[in-house]
Amino acid sequence: MNATSAAIGLDIGGTKAALAVVEGTGRILARTTLPTEAELGFDRAVDRLAAAIDELLRRTALPRTGLAGIGIACAGPVDPARGLINNPYTLAGWDHCDIVSPLRDRFDVPVRLENDADAAALGESVHGAGQGADPLVMLTFGTGVGGAAIVRGAIYRGAGGEHPELGHIPVLPDGTACYCGIRGCLESLASGTAIERGAREADLACTSARDVFTAAISGNAVASAIVDRATSAAATGAWTLCHTFLPERLILGGGVMDDQFPLFAAAIQRRLATATQFTPSNVAVTRAALGNDAGLLGASGLVHCESDPGAPWGEKMTRRVTDPSCREGHHP
Amino acid sequence: MNATSAAIGLDIGGTKAALAVVEGTGRILARTTLPTEAELGFDRAVDRLAAAIDELLRRTALPRTGLAGIGIACAGPVDPARGLINNPYTLAGWDHCDIVSPLRDRFDVPVRLENDADAAALGESVHGAGQGADPLVMLTFGTGVGGAAIVRGAIYRGAGGEHPELGHIPVLPDGTACYCGIRGCLESLASGTAIERGAREADLACTSARDVFTAAISGNAVASAIVDRATSAAATGAWTLCHTFLPERLILGGGVMDDQFPLFAAAIQRRLATATQFTPSNVAVTRAALGNDAGLLGASGLVHCESDPGAPWGEKMTRRVTDPSCREGHHP
Repeated sequence: MNATSAAIGLDIGGTKAALAVVEGTGRILARTTLPTEAELGFDRAVDRLAAAIDELLRRTALPRTGLAGIGIACAGPVDPARGLINNPYTLAGWDHCDIVSPLRDRFDVPVRLENDADAAALGESVHGAGQGADPLVMLTFGTGVGGAAIVRGAIYRGAGGEHPELGHIPVLPDGTACYCGIRGCLESLASGTAIERGAREADLACTSARDVFTAAISGNAVASAIVDRATSAAATGAWTLCHTFLPERLILGGGVMDDQFPLFAAAIQRRLATATQFTPSNVAVTRAALGNDAGLLGASGLVHCESDPGAPWGEKMTRRVTDPSCREGHHP
Repeated sequence: MNATSAAIGLDIGGTKAALAVVEGTGRILARTTLPTEAELGFDRAVDRLAAAIDELLRRTALPRTGLAGIGIACAGPVDPARGLINNPYTLAGWDHCDIVSPLRDRFDVPVRLENDADAAALGESVHGAGQGADPLVMLTFGTGVGGAAIVRGAIYRGAGGEHPELGHIPVLPDGTACYCGIRGCLESLASGTAIERGAREADLACTSARDVFTAAISGNAVASAIVDRATSAAATGAWTLCHTFLPERLILGGGVMDDQFPLFAAAIQRRLATATQFTPSNVAVTRAALGNDAGLLGASGLVHCESDPGAPWGEKMTRRVTDPSCREGHHP
């Protein structure tokens, strides 16, 4: 693999799928999007995605044989080891859907699948705000709170190959009950949904999280309390992450951070500055740099920098460290 | 390195130092202990430790040239990359004390230093309750709550090469203030010290944590509340660890677990069983197996299984995966 070899990055969301031809350097040679239309069937979607890949290859004059592989980021749950999408929640009917085999058969290249939070973190790690930092943690504040860790250049996976669910670390023992199984997890306090629910419960005339932040800035005390609860939860979450993964860089992304990164970063940095059991100056809090392209670029990074997700770590690392395009903080 | 090569494992605590000649299999060929006597000076201690090593080599008829290296576990803070002990807190006067250079010069073998929590986790990983499990987290409940993670066969280190301080993950926002910088961390609720402080504050006629557990078992409601607070904090801590490191095995060690492992393990397993965002059956909660020898065996494991702590991860992993004695869950 070299920096100029091209891979397909594919990011499948509930409403649309984004595809691009991406060089190892992260340069996007061509891109397109199409509506996912999950409800019209998985096989139809695979056919449309394959046709879109062919069209991208035509546009870039890249023969199929010039393709290093296809990396897929998809809204989870997904099973990276088996290449299955198990997400009937936001992709109607897509349960136990093998997306890897049909694309591999059609294009005769390696195909990798990863959930979108992990792919986004890998994208930021290789091409975005995480370059040169390891370990690295990314938190995404949107409808929920997602996250992922990059450790020694690879997506961190735990027991059973599952990925850490960083949105569900405990913050407030007497908080709202979450579907994760406890009360007061990070997501239940700091997600866009949590902020909107807080406004609703307080009869605040705000319909979106953005409205709540605006009301807080204009001096509304109720809105301020909701915002403080969210930023304080984020600070507690960051404290937890600094006493577990202890990342060199903590990247904050997602819709909530589009406008509110400075507010959240300040709350986190104030809290971390009081820590005595690690060196706070070693941890940078950074805004995500790739926006909606993080998943796409991370997906292509699955081909350029990650080996078979089913392989044992030792084997993975052997491959990674012998792949010159991925060494040294994996800047190609 | 092969399984029968011998290393010196050295575990330096506040009151005594334990030394052993250990094979790669974990078999101890000879052992000794001596009082640390830190207050009598660092140079004197190094001389006494070196003499003790020579004596062990004589007893095992092992020539200095047959020694693979010396691994040192020491009560932290230590700086593994520079080989410095920076612990004037429990080793009077030992600040910025280079223990690696004099032993390396004297014995002409690789010498590695690690803090004792990390060494104990490595010891359990290689020779004890953690064999075959990766990732692995060990929590030690004693005077404080310490911990370490083993990820892909190596001691996990974060930003600045520092290790995760798992005793200071947040549990109860309105708990007792801890020296770590927040209120209600795991250590402030579940350490032996915290249990004893709880008894003192409640005017309970208990002088030790063990007494508090005994009183709770005999039906004392105040003692029960203190114990419940400790086991509940451990369960919250375990929840956090399962949403971050997500270990295949969570090992509980330390003095508190000598008698109370079943109580803590049950509280943790009850809590984890309610989790929906990972598969609880993938995580085993296990009692530490090596007792006081974990540090000693982990120290020898620094030689047998870990390479230079200052080296970048990539280099480390290359060495590890090419070292047959440490492959496959690092059973030699």
